[in-house]
Amino acid sequence: MTAIKAYAAQSATSPLAPFSIERRALHPDDVQIEILYCGVCHSDLHTARNEWHNTLYPCVPGHEIVGRVSAIGSAVTRFRVGELAGVGCMVDSCGHCSSCQEGEEQYCENGFTGTYNGPVFGGENTYGGYSQRIVVKESFVLRIQHEENNLAQVAPLLCAGITTYSPLRHWRVGPGMKVGVVGLGGLGHMGVKLAHAMGAHVVLFTTSPGKAADAKRLGADEVCISTDAAQMGRYQGQLHFILNTVAAPHDINTFLGLLRKDGTMTLVGVPEHPHPSPAVGTLIFGRRSLAGSLIGGIAETQEMLDFCAQHQIGSDVEIIPMDYINTAYERMLKSDVKYRFVIDMQTLR
Amino acid sequence: MTAIKAYAAQSATSPLAPFSIERRALHPDDVQIEILYCGVCHSDLHTARNEWHNTLYPCVPGHEIVGRVSAIGSAVTRFRVGELAGVGCMVDSCGHCSSCQEGEEQYCENGFTGTYNGPVFGGENTYGGYSQRIVVKESFVLRIQHEENNLAQVAPLLCAGITTYSPLRHWRVGPGMKVGVVGLGGLGHMGVKLAHAMGAHVVLFTTSPGKAADAKRLGADEVCISTDAAQMGRYQGQLHFILNTVAAPHDINTFLGLLRKDGTMTLVGVPEHPHPSPAVGTLIFGRRSLAGSLIGGIAETQEMLDFCAQHQIGSDVEIIPMDYINTAYERMLKSDVKYRFVIDMQTLR
Repeated sequence: MTAIKAYAAQSATSPLAPFSIERRALHPDDVQIEILYCGVCHSDLHTARNEWHNTLYPCVPGHEIVGRVSAIGSAVTRFRVGELAGVGCMVDSCGHCSSCQEGEEQYCENGFTGTYNGPVFGGENTYGGYSQRIVVKESFVLRIQHEENNLAQVAPLLCAGITTYSPLRHWRVGPGMKVGVVGLGGLGHMGVKLAHAMGAHVVLFTTSPGKAADAKRLGADEVCISTDAAQMGRYQGQLHFILNTVAAPHDINTFLGLLRKDGTMTLVGVPEHPHPSPAVGTLIFGRRSLAGSLIGGIAETQEMLDFCAQHQIGSDVEIIPMDYINTAYERMLKSDVKYRFVIDMQTLR
Repeated sequence: MTAIKAYAAQSATSPLAPFSIERRALHPDDVQIEILYCGVCHSDLHTARNEWHNTLYPCVPGHEIVGRVSAIGSAVTRFRVGELAGVGCMVDSCGHCSSCQEGEEQYCENGFTGTYNGPVFGGENTYGGYSQRIVVKESFVLRIQHEENNLAQVAPLLCAGITTYSPLRHWRVGPGMKVGVVGLGGLGHMGVKLAHAMGAHVVLFTTSPGKAADAKRLGADEVCISTDAAQMGRYQGQLHFILNTVAAPHDINTFLGLLRKDGTMTLVGVPEHPHPSPAVGTLIFGRRSLAGSLIGGIAETQEMLDFCAQHQIGSDVEIIPMDYINTAYERMLKSDVKYRFVIDMQTLR
């Protein structure tokens, strides 16, 4: 056990502040990583402030981790000291349920272990990436093939990237498909980049006319202002798939009507209060589906990272020092970031 | 044009009563059918009473029609005079949109023409099966291969049968799958019979303990009383697919939680008021889907009829005379029928 520096919330109402944590001595299958960059996800804020009513304190958030391997256990075969490595939202799962057997650890029936805030179904706390170092079981560590000068942009792929990549792949987005992305934030801007790279025709839906130019720069073929009924009308029954990244309660039925027959709209954000109930008639007349999707499995996360390296895709980021985190949270609440804060973890040393 | 006897509602508040209608002279591709039996669907009542606010009066309901061909147009090739024939919910569609080209006329982008109440998007009224005779374009007429002594049981297949068969097929229900059917009414009892015949393990969910024995007789392997939290708990995350036939507003989230990873619950009834909004977390944690499905295309309706003939499946029916229809509606509102009223159209002659 070695003590390292971290940033932690001690309660739902206390700001994040310097804190000392310990990391375990390496098990034979463990990889120790010196953290270079850690992305700032909205889940970090929800958890730090106990908005999901399940936070274990002290809380060290951060699950968009990129770093360099500094030690390996005796049984580790896929990583060597000095290599780059990534850690996303999970650091363990049961390994034997049908979801784990299928390589979809995010749906582990016994509850995966989050990179921070411990196992889904209760147990010892875990500390995330707002820290100098992390020790993770090899099978939950990702390889990074991006160029080293873009590492800050890689960090958000570990959550925002896989959360959008997985549903786009699951619902087979590709050439010949017209795909809607709702919302242009941390998730939405990755959805636009990835759907575009997969060859789809991408329509970005936003309430902010000011985001149109940026959406097109990121890869959107068209931008629709979703509060404009005339613009929305042009897309009725036109889209094969919609990735809805907006967690704030909104009228999802407006978007369901844009789907073609057999189209699916997939939600990736959990609203604090329910969305208005979707009209069943909109589902029935068109055999449409409303679905949800949670991050992605480890194998798929690796596939996403490799895809992004190949297509030179990273997140658009604003790099911040560790002691800026509380200000960053306030700005995140106002959507004042294009499009992801990433902490330069050198600033914690 | 020939005048024939029918039963019609003249307004939303008038009971159905004898009425004279005309059927068109045969076009070259028309089939004329003397109606033997007509099933009574809840949509008949909704339409007669203008509960969907789109009824054209006079209204002659009835879209579960079985009869005998009495004349054919000069270009008809698939039917001969004297043969049995069926007509379901549709008598025409545009024929050229992508849904029609795919043989899914029920999703016709220009609106199919209902067997009664005319085209979905407005136009001349059509008169349904509460009548002696109907004239229908050959391509919307179904072949009946059931034995002649079971014809009353065949009529409800044309709506209740295909409405449940189509989603069971679309979501690939078969051996090795655990399938839930919610509700044991006209649709639900067909869902149980069909899912059982397709080889699935069928769990019937009902609020009525008194229906358990009947559900098992119809083919359910298990019955769960959905108001009993302990019973419901046993099915958490267990079902591959759920066919939800209940149109009354209810907590659909309770059932979504019973789905396995990647499971779908499909709604086939439009509630008068919205169901409570489903919890997005239930969709996300398990990549579950909530979908809708509308009757089925003509080719699939034929496939369903052939499947039912092969497996000797019909509806459980109570045969009534035409002049009992208003009483039947009142009983249907109290779910006092096992499980479908079918009018013996000889009683109208």
